[in-house]
Amino acid sequence: MTAMRLLLVNPNSTASMTAKAVAAARKVARPDTEIIPATSTGNPPSIQGFYDVAMSLPGLLGEIEKRSPGGDAIVITCFDDTGLDAARAAVDVPVIGIGEAAFHAASFLCCRFSVVTTLGRSVPGIEANLQRYGLAARCARVRASEVPVLDLERGDSVVVELVADQIESAMRDDGAEAIVLGCAGMTEMTTYLTERFGIPVIDGVASAVTFAEALVAAGYKTSKIGGYARSIR
Amino acid sequence: MTAMRLLLVNPNSTASMTAKAVAAARKVARPDTEIIPATSTGNPPSIQGFYDVAMSLPGLLGEIEKRSPGGDAIVITCFDDTGLDAARAAVDVPVIGIGEAAFHAASFLCCRFSVVTTLGRSVPGIEANLQRYGLAARCARVRASEVPVLDLERGDSVVVELVADQIESAMRDDGAEAIVLGCAGMTEMTTYLTERFGIPVIDGVASAVTFAEALVAAGYKTSKIGGYARSIR
Amino acid sequence: MTAMRLLLVNPNSTASMTAKAVAAARKVARPDTEIIPATSTGNPPSIQGFYDVAMSLPGLLGEIEKRSPGGDAIVITCFDDTGLDAARAAVDVPVIGIGEAAFHAASFLCCRFSVVTTLGRSVPGIEANLQRYGLAARCARVRASEVPVLDLERGDSVVVELVADQIESAMRDDGAEAIVLGCAGMTEMTTYLTERFGIPVIDGVASAVTFAEALVAAGYKTSKIGGYARSIR
Amino acid sequence: MTAMRLLLVNPNSTASMTAKAVAAARKVARPDTEIIPATSTGNPPSIQGFYDVAMSLPGLLGEIEKRSPGGDAIVITCFDDTGLDAARAAVDVPVIGIGEAAFHAASFLCCRFSVVTTLGRSVPGIEANLQRYGLAARCARVRASEVPVLDLERGDSVVVELVADQIESAMRDDGAEAIVLGCAGMTEMTTYLTERFGIPVIDGVASAVTFAEALVAAGYKTSKIGGYARSIR
Amino acid sequence: MTAMRLLLVNPNSTASMTAKAVAAARKVARPDTEIIPATSTGNPPSIQGFYDVAMSLPGLLGEIEKRSPGGDAIVITCFDDTGLDAARAAVDVPVIGIGEAAFHAASFLCCRFSVVTTLGRSVPGIEANLQRYGLAARCARVRASEVPVLDLERGDSVVVELVADQIESAMRDDGAEAIVLGCAGMTEMTTYLTERFGIPVIDGVASAVTFAEALVAAGYKTSKIGGYARSIR
Amino acid sequence: MTAMRLLLVNPNSTASMTAKAVAAARKVARPDTEIIPATSTGNPPSIQGFYDVAMSLPGLLGEIEKRSPGGDAIVITCFDDTGLDAARAAVDVPVIGIGEAAFHAASFLCCRFSVVTTLGRSVPGIEANLQRYGLAARCARVRASEVPVLDLERGDSVVVELVADQIESAMRDDGAEAIVLGCAGMTEMTTYLTERFGIPVIDGVASAVTFAEALVAAGYKTSKIGGYARSIR
Repeated sequence: MTAMRLLLVNPNSTASMTAKAVAAARKVARPDTEIIPATSTGNPPSIQGFYDVAMSLPGLLGEIEKRSPGGDAIVITCFDDTGLDAARAAVDVPVIGIGEAAFHAASFLCCRFSVVTTLGRSVPGIEANLQRYGLAARCARVRASEVPVLDLERGDSVVVELVADQIESAMRDDGAEAIVLGCAGMTEMTTYLTERFGIPVIDGVASAVTFAEALVAAGYKTSKIGGYARSIR
Repeated sequence: MTAMRLLLVNPNSTASMTAKAVAAARKVARPDTEIIPATSTGNPPSIQGFYDVAMSLPGLLGEIEKRSPGGDAIVITCFDDTGLDAARAAVDVPVIGIGEAAFHAASFLCCRFSVVTTLGRSVPGIEANLQRYGLAARCARVRASEVPVLDLERGDSVVVELVADQIESAMRDDGAEAIVLGCAGMTEMTTYLTERFGIPVIDGVASAVTFAEALVAAGYKTSKIGGYARSIR
Repeated sequence: MTAMRLLLVNPNSTASMTAKAVAAARKVARPDTEIIPATSTGNPPSIQGFYDVAMSLPGLLGEIEKRSPGGDAIVITCFDDTGLDAARAAVDVPVIGIGEAAFHAASFLCCRFSVVTTLGRSVPGIEANLQRYGLAARCARVRASEVPVLDLERGDSVVVELVADQIESAMRDDGAEAIVLGCAGMTEMTTYLTERFGIPVIDGVASAVTFAEALVAAGYKTSKIGGYARSIR
Repeated sequence: MTAMRLLLVNPNSTASMTAKAVAAARKVARPDTEIIPATSTGNPPSIQGFYDVAMSLPGLLGEIEKRSPGGDAIVITCFDDTGLDAARAAVDVPVIGIGEAAFHAASFLCCRFSVVTTLGRSVPGIEANLQRYGLAARCARVRASEVPVLDLERGDSVVVELVADQIESAMRDDGAEAIVLGCAGMTEMTTYLTERFGIPVIDGVASAVTFAEALVAAGYKTSKIGGYARSIR
Repeated sequence: MTAMRLLLVNPNSTASMTAKAVAAARKVARPDTEIIPATSTGNPPSIQGFYDVAMSLPGLLGEIEKRSPGGDAIVITCFDDTGLDAARAAVDVPVIGIGEAAFHAASFLCCRFSVVTTLGRSVPGIEANLQRYGLAARCARVRASEVPVLDLERGDSVVVELVADQIESAMRDDGAEAIVLGCAGMTEMTTYLTERFGIPVIDGVASAVTFAEALVAAGYKTSKIGGYARSIR
Repeated sequence: MTAMRLLLVNPNSTASMTAKAVAAARKVARPDTEIIPATSTGNPPSIQGFYDVAMSLPGLLGEIEKRSPGGDAIVITCFDDTGLDAARAAVDVPVIGIGEAAFHAASFLCCRFSVVTTLGRSVPGIEANLQRYGLAARCARVRASEVPVLDLERGDSVVVELVADQIESAMRDDGAEAIVLGCAGMTEMTTYLTERFGIPVIDGVASAVTFAEALVAAGYKTSKIGGYARSIR
């Protein structure tokens, strides 16, 4: 098949996070896949909880639509899968969120996983997503490291240790057999933490990019009847 | 206690629907409750499915915030409970959606109910809400009358019969013991349909307004820790 | 509308608990709502667990029926919602239990709550109710303070501290964002505990009384087909 | 081991139904098992729906307690498992309901079953039990034959055909691989219907009596901590 | 009825475990029940986890088929219910697994139980079974004693204490009202642990043998339509 | 990254089905991915229901192990995901089943799907898998076309029409927004049916091959603690 084009949309307005996601995508994407980055300028600088999600939606959908049909698939690079259902209703190509992708990847690799995310305020939204996707029973616990998203940008060892502490607790107390990193901003820690703990440490960006390529290669499109039918006015 | 003030926010931009909701609210509210209407100008004229929901969120939250603290409780007058979690994160007072209120009311009045809504495209979102609220097992089926929201404004007998047809099917085929009307635009049919079918026919606006009064009278506020903690930047 | 009349039925025979419930009801009810108290004389003095529930049912239903049609709605003032389904089959007006009302109120105010009740023997019945109502996934844990119901009558500070200890544990260990007080006898602690912990502390009596008023104001009745159809002999 | 004594308690007051249950029990019980029948005089003549269940509880518990310790196990011979939890709290020996026993037996013999019961009013209570026992996902549908319990006493061919019609529908439309007969009054039809349809037709009385013998033979008792702890006053 | 014949098939190849199961069966079986033991020679010496289960299936089914129709019912004496669905498809008589039987027995005796099994690797398979059988909500936790199956053969006090430690934790931390012993090799500890802890301690072999007798006495067979229809080639 | 090697293991012994799966894989796999086919000689010619699954497991695992470490990931090409858990316990690389892959793909593309499989006897196993994977709520219905697996080999128009009939019913009666083809033998119909019905028609082989590539590209391995820990003897 011909080379693919993936639209990587960051629902927040922090360009350095988009760049990080592109770098993570580039490491795992097919050599001939074109990664088209998009940052949702005007949106909040980070998305932490229900309010930020809500405020980001039209901006995110606008980024998607102004490039349409700009890609063969779309990846939404925020762990709470901001606007996932709405984006699917807006386009024909497959759309995948990094949270969703990471949960599904984990369910292929272990019997039970835990999630380590940023702030406690984000936990209920992630739990609601797990329930919606049907994977709540596979997730032992969603843990908050209490590192704000933008502090992840520093990437220093203090921040890494706070995440590592939660992984240790998840392995000891939750019976977790794998860990899902619950924020796009943690993507750079993946290799280090995988090696340190010896279990699968799953990054949403890598999961979503490769799954998006999979859906395109298999020739699938988003259904256009029912819940994802096109809006008409 | 002193008289209450309820903010009735319509997430769409159709003022006549706001007016209808206010009229329905006025019929059931305490005599001394002040109803403060708000229409989300700039938003889509009706909300049918995931895309419309997403496009309406900042406009809706803006209406809420520009009036803050403008009421003792907030009612969101769209059956898919547009922005419910985000609104709760934005304010301290109770927030209730008309879909949510109708489902809970139904669960107090019968063992099993069906929902009759507008278009098929809205069904998956309503089903996702029922699952999230825990009431999916009590709902036999979400039925689409295939009447678009704005056609409900006509309120003519053809439209009423399309809804009535679905109620008949729900009683015969689903074992429904009560019916939830799945759109704010159906509020005017409630009395007629209740009398015609002899079972509870539940309207979201009436349910949400009286439950909002109940939460205020009981002295409750939205929790400000965890998922509904205030956003900080 | 004209003033309402609410029947407050205490399924146990302890008149001082009925009086407490009436006082709690009076504090939140509409000024013109008439509260009609009923104590189930001949029933056990408190209801703790499945056996007590069972022994109280005909007495409770008798109290309801001898007043029928004595009210516009009925509130059952025992946290395990003694006889709720049977009472709904017996009358046409709405019937609501204080446990049920508190769980639904909590689900409007937070993402996740814990219950603090009296004895461990009552926990499985409450858990079964939460599962039946669909709200089990929203409840982090049902905790027993191991204070017997009748000791709550003393209302001294030792008893309050035992309840407070469980609230502290629920906030720290369960991620509870709100607390449901799991016994009518705890109603007097509500204001104090709300202020002390700064999160919603939800009382069943206040919740049920205001929800009952809501259902009456909205014009709803109990469905008389299916599970709540009238018994015929 | 020494011979067992089983208390067969009929929660309703119809002695001919007790006699029928004893006959059904006798056909499957061990030769040396003593069947002790008890009819709950003073209770309703049949139990159809939530109200009848509630009105029967103290009478049923009284029958159990006045014979205590009269048996090695107790079988409650009403398909809605009247008073099951309360009876377990009242005694030390195993207690089993005929509805419960039939559902569990079915789950050992097929992947998916349907229930055929008497009146539609009994369906929601049976569905609530299936959910409580965890077996709702194994039950395709609870069907009402609309034959009142006391008409089953006639046992004529019209009544049998109404039940057979529902079995045919269950096999054709529900994918049912076995049928649970949802009333003690249907016990005499079991052999005929099993032969006619060639699939397991499961009777609650036979299931409960043999399971009760099994629990006694295995040496089990009801747990006396937690939900089934003895009531203390 | 005439005396029964039960086939007790051990899916592993350790004859001493078969002997233990036969002894446990003999203690609870009817005096005239014939126990027909079968050891799956050629299979793994113990079954710990998914891989061992898979490798044991044709050997187990071969043992069953070469004796067919050798018994009135079949008991599979491995706690992960090795080959249960396949065995049901292979024969007409009832088939019951010891894990399944123990879970169902527990659900008749308490509101909430915990399982104590051998190695952590076996936990996910047991949890998957509980979910499949519908009893996951009744099980507080599946605990691993980290005693390998074959060490249970030693039966010394160190091994018993490791199991007892988990029971203590289950009672204190899980709210367990009964304990299911999660390995056929623990059968000999049952009486001792029941007496020591004063709550039901449930053994799979005793449960399955007596339930198998119950199903035979009630005259039930495995359904031969749908999932357990006979294979045809 | 370097080119991948995927082991495509057919759990049945029909080499023409392996060839079909390889052809389907080749159409969607990356150009440089090497497909290593394996047929489980000695196993049943097709796998229809629980018994066939069980009889195929050691043969399947033997094929996997004799090639180990023969591939970067393993695809099991039978729709009931024969031996999935056991294979994961046997190796370190990712293992994915075609049923599982198709369900997850569908959940990325629509709100609700139906499955069309071969014989009714296979339905309960597929339903059990959907429940285990958490995707049962997304699946409206598992439908049997009653075409035996080996008849699919004929691929004639009668067979295609039997499948198409079920798709039509699924769209009309189940509200299905996408269709999962429930047998590897249906893979060749995918393109035709997609075009005919205009909704996503999802093939397990294409889904599993591209997801396996995704997991390898993302650098993931199967967890080796807990349920998928290596067997030790």
